[in-house]
Formats: sequence, structure tokens, C-alpha cells
Amino acid sequence: MSKMMKATIFVEPGRIALDDRPIPDIGPLDALIRITTTTICGTDIHIMKGEYPVAPGLIIGHEPVGVIDKLGSAVTGYQEGQRVIVGAITPCGWSNASLSGHHAQCGRAAPHGYEAIGGWRFGNTIDGCQAEFLHVPDAMANLAPIPDDLSDEQVLMCPDIMSTGFSGAESGNIRIGDTVAVFAQGPIGLCATGGARLMGASQIIAVETVPERMQAAQEMGADVVVDFHKEDAVEAIRRITNGRGVDVAIEALGLQQTFEAALRVLRPGGVLSSLGVYSGDLQIPLDAFAAGLGDHTIRTTLCPGGKERMRRLMNIVASNRLDTTRLVTHRYRLDDIEKAYELFAEQSDGVLKIAITP
Amino acid sequence: MSKMMKATIFVEPGRIALDDRPIPDIGPLDALIRITTTTICGTDIHIMKGEYPVAPGLIIGHEPVGVIDKLGSAVTGYQEGQRVIVGAITPCGWSNASLSGHHAQCGRAAPHGYEAIGGWRFGNTIDGCQAEFLHVPDAMANLAPIPDDLSDEQVLMCPDIMSTGFSGAESGNIRIGDTVAVFAQGPIGLCATGGARLMGASQIIAVETVPERMQAAQEMGADVVVDFHKEDAVEAIRRITNGRGVDVAIEALGLQQTFEAALRVLRPGGVLSSLGVYSGDLQIPLDAFAAGLGDHTIRTTLCPGGKERMRRLMNIVASNRLDTTRLVTHRYRLDDIEKAYELFAEQSDGVLKIAITP
Amino acid sequence: MSKMMKATIFVEPGRIALDDRPIPDIGPLDALIRITTTTICGTDIHIMKGEYPVAPGLIIGHEPVGVIDKLGSAVTGYQEGQRVIVGAITPCGWSNASLSGHHAQCGRAAPHGYEAIGGWRFGNTIDGCQAEFLHVPDAMANLAPIPDDLSDEQVLMCPDIMSTGFSGAESGNIRIGDTVAVFAQGPIGLCATGGARLMGASQIIAVETVPERMQAAQEMGADVVVDFHKEDAVEAIRRITNGRGVDVAIEALGLQQTFEAALRVLRPGGVLSSLGVYSGDLQIPLDAFAAGLGDHTIRTTLCPGGKERMRRLMNIVASNRLDTTRLVTHRYRLDDIEKAYELFAEQSDGVLKIAITP
Amino acid sequence: MSKMMKATIFVEPGRIALDDRPIPDIGPLDALIRITTTTICGTDIHIMKGEYPVAPGLIIGHEPVGVIDKLGSAVTGYQEGQRVIVGAITPCGWSNASLSGHHAQCGRAAPHGYEAIGGWRFGNTIDGCQAEFLHVPDAMANLAPIPDDLSDEQVLMCPDIMSTGFSGAESGNIRIGDTVAVFAQGPIGLCATGGARLMGASQIIAVETVPERMQAAQEMGADVVVDFHKEDAVEAIRRITNGRGVDVAIEALGLQQTFEAALRVLRPGGVLSSLGVYSGDLQIPLDAFAAGLGDHTIRTTLCPGGKERMRRLMNIVASNRLDTTRLVTHRYRLDDIEKAYELFAEQSDGVLKIAITP
Repeated sequence: MSKMMKATIFVEPGRIALDDRPIPDIGPLDALIRITTTTICGTDIHIMKGEYPVAPGLIIGHEPVGVIDKLGSAVTGYQEGQRVIVGAITPCGWSNASLSGHHAQCGRAAPHGYEAIGGWRFGNTIDGCQAEFLHVPDAMANLAPIPDDLSDEQVLMCPDIMSTGFSGAESGNIRIGDTVAVFAQGPIGLCATGGARLMGASQIIAVETVPERMQAAQEMGADVVVDFHKEDAVEAIRRITNGRGVDVAIEALGLQQTFEAALRVLRPGGVLSSLGVYSGDLQIPLDAFAAGLGDHTIRTTLCPGGKERMRRLMNIVASNRLDTTRLVTHRYRLDDIEKAYELFAEQSDGVLKIAITP
Repeated sequence: MSKMMKATIFVEPGRIALDDRPIPDIGPLDALIRITTTTICGTDIHIMKGEYPVAPGLIIGHEPVGVIDKLGSAVTGYQEGQRVIVGAITPCGWSNASLSGHHAQCGRAAPHGYEAIGGWRFGNTIDGCQAEFLHVPDAMANLAPIPDDLSDEQVLMCPDIMSTGFSGAESGNIRIGDTVAVFAQGPIGLCATGGARLMGASQIIAVETVPERMQAAQEMGADVVVDFHKEDAVEAIRRITNGRGVDVAIEALGLQQTFEAALRVLRPGGVLSSLGVYSGDLQIPLDAFAAGLGDHTIRTTLCPGGKERMRRLMNIVASNRLDTTRLVTHRYRLDDIEKAYELFAEQSDGVLKIAITP
Repeated sequence: MSKMMKATIFVEPGRIALDDRPIPDIGPLDALIRITTTTICGTDIHIMKGEYPVAPGLIIGHEPVGVIDKLGSAVTGYQEGQRVIVGAITPCGWSNASLSGHHAQCGRAAPHGYEAIGGWRFGNTIDGCQAEFLHVPDAMANLAPIPDDLSDEQVLMCPDIMSTGFSGAESGNIRIGDTVAVFAQGPIGLCATGGARLMGASQIIAVETVPERMQAAQEMGADVVVDFHKEDAVEAIRRITNGRGVDVAIEALGLQQTFEAALRVLRPGGVLSSLGVYSGDLQIPLDAFAAGLGDHTIRTTLCPGGKERMRRLMNIVASNRLDTTRLVTHRYRLDDIEKAYELFAEQSDGVLKIAITP
Repeated sequence: MSKMMKATIFVEPGRIALDDRPIPDIGPLDALIRITTTTICGTDIHIMKGEYPVAPGLIIGHEPVGVIDKLGSAVTGYQEGQRVIVGAITPCGWSNASLSGHHAQCGRAAPHGYEAIGGWRFGNTIDGCQAEFLHVPDAMANLAPIPDDLSDEQVLMCPDIMSTGFSGAESGNIRIGDTVAVFAQGPIGLCATGGARLMGASQIIAVETVPERMQAAQEMGADVVVDFHKEDAVEAIRRITNGRGVDVAIEALGLQQTFEAALRVLRPGGVLSSLGVYSGDLQIPLDAFAAGLGDHTIRTTLCPGGKERMRRLMNIVASNRLDTTRLVTHRYRLDDIEKAYELFAEQSDGVLKIAITP
């Protein structure tokens, strides 16, 4: 009989619950991780509400920090007891998509090797990490050892928040001296702001209205924060840039309104780097798009994963380039995760991210 | 009193007319070209119909082949009598946009140096080339000498059609071995097909329904031509690619339907390279966009201009990489341009491009 | 007791020999391939001569075409009996180098995941394919099914010759309208010429002196072939380009002389794309390098491998973009491979590539 | 009779001198700048010593800060009295090289539009700025207005030092999380260190031995400074990176020794970004180059110029991303420039850069 563990289950739209599950078995290429810290993502709230559908009974969560408990028979290069993180996205490394560098669209089982969003498996298509243990597929591509001197909370943002946020800046091809606007300053938008700063933007304009997030935006590197409840964000950015517009606009919310505003503030030839998870069709206004003649680029990016990405992000943390522990505003035990979900869903008490420890 | 010349004038929506105009004076940085051959673009039809607004009285046309008649006092490196082409887009070279390589968005007079579609001046914001003479601004950035052994008709597609069509392939970053779909096989779509072939695509799927254009698509390099009146183009492309989709989809028409189809046939991580001039807002369907998580890129490109671009395109012609004379299906005298417009607007008689000679 | 097979062994500098070896056992991630066709590479001659050191007793050869004989227990997505090729370079997919796209420098066993030339294992650090059977590591990243309608000889150049040759063009970032010089027209140089053509170069200048290779260069896409025994190649290329120089120069031999000539024919800002395997230090002449102020790029590329690369190359073959069967000038049985080595080492009888069949 | 001005003249190898010269006349595309601050570059020392040959009698200096005194008749968009800087490199904007983005290799007068180092004109092929007035060619491509709140010394590093130093990081394609080594921490190496920091490197290893420069390196962003007099730099960097090597190595001195060391510390697939002005042939050691199979890139970059580049750099200054006033260690009047040269040539008194004011 399998040993049991506690795990956070998607029960039905509107309800998640902590329940008992067997500790997973692993195959030759896999690893079993004992979770030491994890967190809740905005996407988990979408899942809980039934807005992003997953199978009832699935263990959710995709931001694991833990310790290697067991290694598959074919896994080399690691030891049990090692502290590791695993990216939210777990490419296999050998699919055609992965070999092409499209790790997030890894089509492990697809005959042609591509699958939309295929790299996101934890808490989406296989069991996730809001539990005591986590089964990690393709361990050699995904287990990233944590440098000794970094705490769990210091690396907790790496699996998703930093990786996604930074990719907003990276996919925008930000260059030294660019002007950048970042729409919404939730955890991912804040890391997009931090990423824009890391890549050399000389003017970063954040758009937000929640006071705690406006404050955090400045700490993460924004030069100006526009409160969109006090003035029209597009007009404000046009004014701030003397009518020029921005080189890169990052969308970090997932709404038509922010997508459209991001397009409207771009200078001709600029890049709209989109991170949001949308829940409806999007409209591209003819005028903002210069009728298709403005040399615009619109690029969406799903969180980059894999152990090399995690290594790089932990290096950023280790070298004190950006302190993301500042985003951990609350701490809960796994036993109380239902309360943590409630708080996070309501975005009350200035919450940014909640550290969950089993 | 100025000497007079014949010129094609936008009179009012629905009407263009041949009229007499003074031969233009030129400033120190300019050149005067005597037009020897020009042609009519689909965009000119939009202008004629009033769908793309220009000032009444403007001389239209933006695809000039001619001979240098006069050079501005500050222009060096050219001689009167030299045969030249000039791109449809005439960047100045020294605006901030131009210095950044965004020649088509050149904001010559804008304080910050960027202006949407600012590089397109001929027949848009200044007088164009469907006339006996053409005033060329910023001559040193724009006059491209024609190699001796090339005829007017051989280089007639360079100023716009080839430059735009090829840019569809270039902005798609086509790589050796890519699968590419090209939606619509008018002159620009045909050159996009040719460009995809030139860049090493191993499978090119063209979408068209007009028999002459389907035939031309194969001659320009398409491996398969899908007749969208006989089958659903998206389904056909999915079938042809065994469900994988294409690496790059090029939109060369300017309609919601083709834009959307182009997005739907992309593999995750693919690029939609858009060339069309749209006349309404566009919709991005949520499913085709993988909710913003599919690592898609949508990129629009306005015809690249400038003398260096023209030099490169004429090299392609000179080395027989692609024969675009095949696109010239009709020939008219400038005196008969009104009839040529009629034919071209109706797309009758298998017309692709009409050579106009004064 | 293991079954035995015939295999080509590096015995000692100056000597290879056909010998009997046990058919290899495979691990869970591996595959066993029955070789149906293979070939000899210029690098194998270096190995035979002791110029590139490998362990005595090693089976050599790295260009396998064959049939899956056995699959490791953890390998999915393939069937025994399937026809496949495997790239000369066999990345694992999950090393840090591989996850970064540096497949050829894959450091499978290195703690930091990078190893110079680490992706080249066959006939270098593990047994190769000039034998009846081949042990393929990391099968899921490397087995590339052959389309039914392609013969062994049609795909025989994919594992190394085409992949390396094309990469010369790709690493040069050849653009539509570029002028390109390719130094040496052995099998790899010929594929570099073909790759330059596939990527849209408008003028390709090949440098060679062997008549059969000069002829082959034209068939593969060269516009001009300079015989460096009849005139100085640098002077000839300067003359042909009217003093401008080339945008990209590809070195495909591995000598100081060709490396230096490639640098000398570059226009300022050009790219020297180097494919050669050098056997001594290289010198960069100060003048050719503009004292370090010419915005030059020198880039070396080791043959790209992995199943996705092989898929793309076979697509090029399948779509008749380039016929490389033309490079197979001779055919030998594996039993006679020692004679084949002799012929190939002497470069007699107009030999380009020799197909070897067990 | 022209009015006269004071100017610094290259007299003969080993001697520069302050002399009287006529204030230059300007043509229609030019501007006359009254210099308010300038500085001496390491390259000027090479010129003085005769190591980099220029015409005797030439006014030297290429780092101008000043005020517009007169505008050519065809120049628009500026006003007399405006404070401006001009890059050391002055592209025309309309040459083929410039239109291709190769501004530093601008071949204004060359028939094919490219000329090695052609963009560097001031104090090289035309009179420079260590004088009371400066004749600026192609004014509209090159005059960059200084934001009101920035002092002359704040922008004094933009024309060359920052532009060159940053380009070392940019040409290295530094990415978030990269490890970077910078060889030599003179003014350009210090700005390369600053540029690496701006682009998101997570570990920056500077190599230097002069105490003041080692100190400055840390202030500009180095995480570690290796004193190459105390330990072998290559060994030290290998140790610091746990044997992995660096992703990007920047050479900022111009010697065989540093060039070679930069190559030796690269991980496979890494980039050697070279800024140094070399004075002899360079050697690439076979082992450090992995015999041409290590996927290495060697890229040289000449200081990027033009008004858009200057605008971007001044934005970096204005937004306090990097304080380069720290590099101005000494101040001299133009009248005393000969003494300033002496100090700078001797690198005595901890000198980094000397501000010169007429």
C-alpha cells in the first residue's frame, strides 16, 4: 500500500480542497521531490474558478521548491537530499519543439513534437506541487539545484513569476536606452518591470492603481507609475514620452483594455510583449495598428522553463540583482491552503504572493 | 513660367484623372526624375476609391523607374542621364527612426524622429510618379542606379511589389526547412511566395482561387496551391502538414478572414507575418491565440525602401533568382492610364500588373 | 555470448581495419540501429592519419542511415523496423548546453552542462557507424524517421555534410541579395554553396581548383567559380565585386590560407563563417581586421545535430530543393572499406563521397 | 579674412601642439559647433605617438560637447544656441552602409557605400574637436540635443567612451543571467563593465591591476575584480566559474595577451566581443578555438555613432542608470592641453579621463 500525503485538489469550479493522496510512484526518467515551499499563482485562481479548465481531482500548483526524495533508475547527475527547484514549465528536452528552443510548446507525445502550451504540465495536465510530494517528469531536463546560500523564499519566484515576468522584457528585445511601459503590477508585472530594468531600459513607466503595487513597482525599478484611475494611461504615457511613445509595451494582465492600451502607446516599429492569459477574443483597433503598416510586433510568451532557465534566474537572485522576497507578503501552512486561496482570490490585505509550507 | 507635364491626379473618391501639372522644382537635397516606366498598385485603387484618404489634387503612384533629369545642388555621387529606380518608401536616412533601421517609419519632420508610415511619401503625402516627372526627396538615400543590362520591366517590381513581398518572408524569419503558408496570390503575395522560396522554405502552401494566380503561384515557387473556394484553407493546411501547422504564415490581402486563417494554421511558436493593408479592426480569436500562451509572433511590415534595399533587389533580378516580368500582364501609355485603372480595379483579363509608359 | 558484427576500427595512426566486434548492448534511453548505408568523412581521414586523436580500438564513422533494430525500455514514439537517420552530432536534449540551443557543445556528463565539441560522440568518444550495427544514445532526441519515398543515398548527406554545409550559410546570417564567397568545394563547401543559394544570396563566388569540384560548385548554385591556381582568389573576388567585397565569406577547408583569404574579401561589417577543422594556430592579419575596428564577425560552427535538424534537412531533400545524390561518386561494400579509405584519402578519381553498404 | 581659433594639432609622431587655425566654413548640410567641453581618448595617444597615422596638421579629438554656432542652409530641426553632443563616429545616414545599419563603416564617398572605419572622421580624416570650434558634417544625422538638466561633464562620455564600452556588451548579446569577463578597466573597459551590468549579466568579472581602476570597476558594476599581476587571469576566471567559463568575454585593451585570454575563458558557444584597437597581427590558439569546432563567435565593434545613439546614451545618464562623471578625474583648460596629453599618456595620478574646456 502506498504511503499517503496531503495535496491540494481541484474539486469542481469554485472549490479546491486539501485531501489525502498516495505519494506518487516514479518511472526511470523521473524524480520525486519533497516540497518544502510553494505558492499560489493567479492562474491557480482561474483554475479554482473554473475559468481555466482542468480535470477534477487534479493536484494543482506549479511553483515547487523542495528536496530530492527519490531518483528514477535512468537519472544521473543528482543525489537524493539535494535542494532543487523545478520550473512551472517542464520541457522534455528531446521533442522537436524543445530541440528548436520552443520549450514551452513541447509536444512530448505529439507525433510532430509540438503542442500548444504543452510544456506546462504541473497542475494542468499532470499533478502539481501544492502537496507534500511532487512527481517530476524528465528529471534531467528540469531539476535545478539551489545554491547553498539561498533560502527557499529567495528562489520561490523563479519557477514562474520571475521567469514569466523577465520573458516579457526579453521577448520585447529591450535594448539599452529603451523606453518601456508595463501594464499591471501584479507579481508578474512587477517582475516584468524588474526585467526591463535588468535589460537596460532607461525609462520604465508602470501602470497600476493599487497603492501597495504602485509602491512595489518603484522598488522593482519603475521610473514613473501611472495610476490609471486618476488619468488615462494612454494619454499619460504619450505625455510622459513627449508624444513619441514607447519602444516596448508589456501586457501583464490579460484584458482587452490593457492589450489595446499597450498597442496604442507603442512608437511605430515597437514591440507589444504580451504575458497575460486572456479569457476572450482580442481586438486590434485599426488606427492603433496603423492599418497594418506600422511595423508592429505583437509577441506572446509562456513562462520559459527547464533547469538552465532556473539556473540563470537563481544566479540573478544570488548576485542581488533583484530582490523578489519582497513579493512574499503572507505565509501559510499547507494545512491552511484553503484560507490562503481565499485571501489570494480576494486580493485583500495587500497580498502579492503567499509562501506555502507543508 | 514652369514647363508642364502630364500627371495622374486623385480628384475625388471614385475618380482619378490625367491632368497637366508644372514640372516640379527641386531643392538642394532632391532630384528630378523623368519617368520611363511605372505601374499601378492595389493601394492606388484604395486611394482612387477613397478608402485610403489622400489630398485631392495629389499626383498618385509610388513605383518609379526613370532617368535622372536634374540633381539638387548638394547631391553628389550621381549624374544626370543615369537610369534609376526609387523605392516606394523614401526614408531620409538621418531621422531617429531611419538611424535605428526603421526606415519605413521615418519621421523626417517629427521632433522625435518617428512617424507611423512616415517613409511612404510618394502618392501619399507628396506628389507621386504616375506622371512624366517625379520630384525625389533625399536623393542620396533613395536613387538606386539600374544595372545596364536590366530593362525597365525587369526592375519595375522592385520599388514596391518585390520589396513588400520579400519582407513578408524576411519578417517571418524563414529558415531552411520551414513550412510556410501564403494567403492570397496577388502581386505581393506572389512575391512573398518567391521570397519564401528564396529563403529556403521546404514547403510553401499558397492560398488562392483565381486560376491565373494559382498558376503564377506555382511558377513563383509554391509547392501546393489550395483553392479556398474548393476547401477550407485552414483545414487543408492542417491536413497537408499532418496536423503540425506551418512555421510561418504570410498574410498578403488585408482581411479579417485571411488574418485569422493565418493565425489558425501556425504551429505553436510560429510567426504570422502580415503585409495586408487592413480597412477595419482585427479580431484575434482566443483559441487560435492559445489564450496568449502559444508563443506566437504577429508582425506587420511596410515595404522596405532606400537605395540599398533597391540595390539588393535588383541583384536578385540580375542573377535570375526570380523572374518578376511574368507579373506584367498588360501595358498602357500614360495617356490611357484611366483605362488601365479601370482594368486593374476590376481585376479582369487575368491582370496582375500593368506597365505604364509616358 | 554476444553476437558479432563487422566494424571499422581505428588501429593506430595511419591504419584503420575492418574487424569483428560484439553487437552492442543498449540501455533504457538508447537504440540499436542496423546500418544500411554510411559514408566516410574528411574528418575520418584526419582520424586515420592520427591528426585528430581518438582511442585505438574505437569504431569510427558518424553518418548513419539504418533501420531500428532494438529500442531501450524507456524509449517511446518509435517502432523497430523503422528507417531512420541519426545526426553526426547527438545532443542529449537535457544538458544545460542543449537546453540553451548549443546542441553541438552538449556537456551531458559535465557538471555545468557544457563540453567543447561534446555533442560529437560517434566515432570520436563512443563507437561510430562504419559497422553493421550502431548504438545510439539518447534515442528520443536523435532518431529521425526517413520519409518513405526517400532512398538511403538521398538522405546520406544529412547527418553531417548538408548539416555542416548549410550551417556555414546559416551562421553567416545570409540575407536576400547578399554576395557570398565559399572557400573550397569539397562535399561540405559544396553544401555551403547550396545553403547560400537556399538562403537567397544573389551572387555566390566559389573558390576551388579541382575541375570536378568546380563543375559541382556550379551545379550546387555558384554563380562564379574562381580557380585559385589561375589567379589570386582575394584579388579575383575584389574584382568581381567591384572592390566592395562580400557580405559573408564561408571557410570550408581548415587552413590558415583560406581563413585569411575569407577575412580579406569581407566588406566592413561582414561575417566570416568558418566550418573548417584547423590543425594549427590561426593568424588574423592586422590590416584585414581593420585593427579591430571593422565590425567583423568570425563565427565557427560545428555540425548541428538532433532529430529536428535531420527532419528539416530531409524536408529539403524531399522537396527537391537541392539534390545531394550528385555528391555520391563511388559505392563500396563495408567489406572493402579499407580500399574506400585509400581512394578517399588520395582524393583520386574525382571522388566526392563514397556510399558504404554492409 | 576668417576669424581664428585655438586648436590641437598633430604635428609629427611624438608631438601635438596648440595652434591657431581659421574657424571653419560650413556647407549646406553641415553645422558649426562652439566646443564647451571635450576630452582626450586613448586613441589620441596612439595618434600622438604616430602609432595610428593621421595627416600632419590635422586637428585631433573626437568627443565634442558644445553649442550650435551656425547651421548649414539645408539643415532643419535645430536652432543656433542649442546645446548638443556629436558622436565620435559621424555616419551620413544615406550611404549603403548606413542604410544597412553599419553606421561606423559608412562609405560616404565610396561608390559601393562601404568604407572600413569610414564613419570615424573627426580627428582621423577631417578636423576634430580639441579646438574652440568644430565643423560637423551631415548635421541632421549627428547633432544630438542635450537635455537641459544634464551638465557637460555628465554627457562627456557619450560620444565615445560609453558608446564603445556599451557596444562591447551589446555585441556580446549579453542576456539576463550571463557570466561576463571584461579584460582591462580603462575608461572603455569600465563602460563595458557598466554595459554588462545594464544588460542583466549576473556575474561580471573584471580584470585589471591598477588599484584605482580596480576600485572603479566595482563601482561600475563588477562583482569580482581579478588582479592579473597576482594570479593568472584565465585560471582565476576558470576557478571563479567552477570550470564552466563565461558566456561573453569583452576585450577592451587591444593586445594579443588579452585577446587570447578572452578566448580561453569562453564556454563553448560563447562570444568574444572585442573593442581594442590592435597594433599587430593576432593569433588564435588552436586549443582555445577547439580547432574551429567550438561554436565560438569573435566580434569586433567600432564605436556606434549618430544622433539616435547619442539620444539613447544621454537617456541612460538622465535616468541615473550609470554615473560616468566618476571617470572625469582631471580638468584642464584647452590652453594647457599639451600638459593634459602628457599626464594622460603617462597614465599617472590615477587619471581616467580629463575634461578639457576652451
